[in-house]
Amino acid sequence: MDLIQYLDYMGTLAFAASGALKAVRKNMDLFGVGVLATVTAIGGGTIRDALLGERAFWLGDPAYVGLALAAALAVFVLFRVVVREEARGLLVLDAIGLGVFTAIGAAKAWHAQTGIVGVVTMACLTGVGGGMLRDVLAGDVPAVLREEIYASASLAGALAFWVLNVAGAHEAVSAGAAAALTITIRLLSIRFRWRLPRRIGGRARPPAQGDQS
Amino acid sequence: MDLIQYLDYMGTLAFAASGALKAVRKNMDLFGVGVLATVTAIGGGTIRDALLGERAFWLGDPAYVGLALAAALAVFVLFRVVVREEARGLLVLDAIGLGVFTAIGAAKAWHAQTGIVGVVTMACLTGVGGGMLRDVLAGDVPAVLREEIYASASLAGALAFWVLNVAGAHEAVSAGAAAALTITIRLLSIRFRWRLPRRIGGRARPPAQGDQS
Amino acid sequence: MDLIQYLDYMGTLAFAASGALKAVRKNMDLFGVGVLATVTAIGGGTIRDALLGERAFWLGDPAYVGLALAAALAVFVLFRVVVREEARGLLVLDAIGLGVFTAIGAAKAWHAQTGIVGVVTMACLTGVGGGMLRDVLAGDVPAVLREEIYASASLAGALAFWVLNVAGAHEAVSAGAAAALTITIRLLSIRFRWRLPRRIGGRARPPAQGDQS
Repeated sequence: MDLIQYLDYMGTLAFAASGALKAVRKNMDLFGVGVLATVTAIGGGTIRDALLGERAFWLGDPAYVGLALAAALAVFVLFRVVVREEARGLLVLDAIGLGVFTAIGAAKAWHAQTGIVGVVTMACLTGVGGGMLRDVLAGDVPAVLREEIYASASLAGALAFWVLNVAGAHEAVSAGAAAALTITIRLLSIRFRWRLPRRIGGRARPPAQGDQS
Repeated sequence: MDLIQYLDYMGTLAFAASGALKAVRKNMDLFGVGVLATVTAIGGGTIRDALLGERAFWLGDPAYVGLALAAALAVFVLFRVVVREEARGLLVLDAIGLGVFTAIGAAKAWHAQTGIVGVVTMACLTGVGGGMLRDVLAGDVPAVLREEIYASASLAGALAFWVLNVAGAHEAVSAGAAAALTITIRLLSIRFRWRLPRRIGGRARPPAQGDQS
Repeated sequence: MDLIQYLDYMGTLAFAASGALKAVRKNMDLFGVGVLATVTAIGGGTIRDALLGERAFWLGDPAYVGLALAAALAVFVLFRVVVREEARGLLVLDAIGLGVFTAIGAAKAWHAQTGIVGVVTMACLTGVGGGMLRDVLAGDVPAVLREEIYASASLAGALAFWVLNVAGAHEAVSAGAAAALTITIRLLSIRFRWRLPRRIGGRARPPAQGDQS
C-alpha cells in the first residue's frame, strides 16, 4: 500500500469520526451515526464522481465504507474519549484528510481533462463536500460556508496542483505539494485563528436563533 | 405486468403519499406537494442511479412520475381522509414499498457488479434515500437517522439478498426474501416499538427546540 | 456568440446574484458567498446532467463558474446597491434566467430522448434546481415549494416546448416560445401577485417559528 492510499484511508477515518461525533451530538441512533460518518467520509468524492459522470469510487474498494463504519462504531462506544481528543488529534487528522482529499480530487479531475475550473471545483468538492452533506443532513447550515479557513485551504492546494501540473511537474510532486499546502494553511489558520472577510451590514439584526449552526 | 412491477408501483404510491402529507403539513403550495411527493417516491432510486453512473430509471417509464403526481393530487384533495388512514393502511403500504425498493436496489447493484458494499448501500439508498430527501427539503433532520427500525430493516433485507445470491439462489428468490424480510422486520418494529440504541450523554442538555423533526 | 448563449450567461449572472445575496444575508464569509452564488447559478443544470448520466455542463465552459464568481464578488462589494435594485432589475433578470434555463433543460432532455416526463422534469430542474439547492444550503425550506408562481411558470414553458416540438416546430422556435412563455407568466405573476392553491387545514396550529423561510 503506497503512501497516498494510506493517507487517504486516514483521512477517511478522520472525516468519518467528525460525522459520527455530530450524529451523537444530534441525538441520532446507531444507524444515523453510521450514515453520517459514511456520508462525511465519502460524500465529497461521491458528488465529484457523479458530476464527472463516473461510478462512485468507493464501489470499487469496500475499505472506504468499512473504515467509515469502524470509525462510527468507535466514536459511538468511546464517545467521551474521542471528544476529549477532538480539539487536538482529530483536528490534525482532519486537516490531513482535507489535504489528501483535495489532492486526490484535483488529480482525478486532471485525468478527466476538465481544465482549471474542473480541477479546482472537483478538488474542493472532494475536500469539503462530505462535510457539507454532514451538516445539511444534521439540520445545520454547512460550517464551511461561514467559518474559518477551511475550504480556502483546499482552494489554495487545488490551485497549486494545477499550476505545478501545467508547469510540467511530475504528478506525484503536484499532488504532494497540493496536500502539503492545504494542510499547512489549515493548521496555521487554526493556530492563529484566521478568518475570511464578511460583508458587515448584510443583516440589520443580530443573528437569529437558528443561525448558530 | 408481473408482481414485482406491481409492488414497485404500489411502493411508489405509498412513498409519494408520505411526501405529499409532509408537504401539506409544511404549508406548501400545490407545486410543492407534487415535488415532495415525487422526490420521496423516486429520489432514492435516482441517487442510486447517479452513483452507479447511469441514467435515472424513471426517465424510461413515465408511470413513476405519473403515479407520484396522482398520489400527490389525491392527498391534496382528500387530505383529511388520508390522514385518518395514515397510521393504519399507509404504514403497511410504506413498509411494502420499503421492502420492494430495497430488493430492486440490491438487484440493480448486483447486476452492476459492485460487491457486497455496493449491494447493501444501493439497496438501503433505494429504500430510504427518497424519505431522506423529503425530510431535508422540508427542513427537517431525516427521521431515518434517529427514529425507529426503518433503515435497519432495509439493511437486513439487503444482506439477505447478498447472502442468498452468493449462495447461488435464483435471483427472484433472493429478491423475494429480501423484500419479505424487510417488510416483516419493519412491521414487527412498529408493532412492538423496537428502537436502535443511542449514545446517552451525547448531549449534556435536553434536545433543543429545532431538534424535534 | 448567439442569442441563446448570451441569455444563458445573463441568467447565470442573475441566479448567482440571488445566491450571493442570500449568502450575505445569512452572514456567510466570502467563500460561502462564492459557493452559494455558484451553486444557485449552475446547480440546476448540474443535477440535470447527473440524472441524465452525463458530465456536468460547466466543466466544458469555464465561463459559467467565472461569471458566477464575478457576480458573487460584485454583490459582496456592492451589497447595498444590489439590494436597492433587487426588487426591480434583479427580478426581471431572474425571470429571464428562469425562462432560458427552462428552454435549455427541455432541449437537452429532448436530445437525450427522454419523453415528455423527462423533458418537463429536466426543464423544471434546470430552472429551479439551483434555487432549491441555495435554500437548502442556507438552512431554509426551498421557497419554490411554497411561494408564488415560479416553478409553475417553468412547467408551462416546458410543456410548450414539448407540444411544439412534437408538432414539428423548429427547435429554435420551441425553445424561444418556452422561454418567452415562462418569462411572461413569471413577470405577470409578480405583477398581479398570483398564488397556487394550498390545502387549508393542513396544520392545526399556526406556522411554527422555523417555518418562515
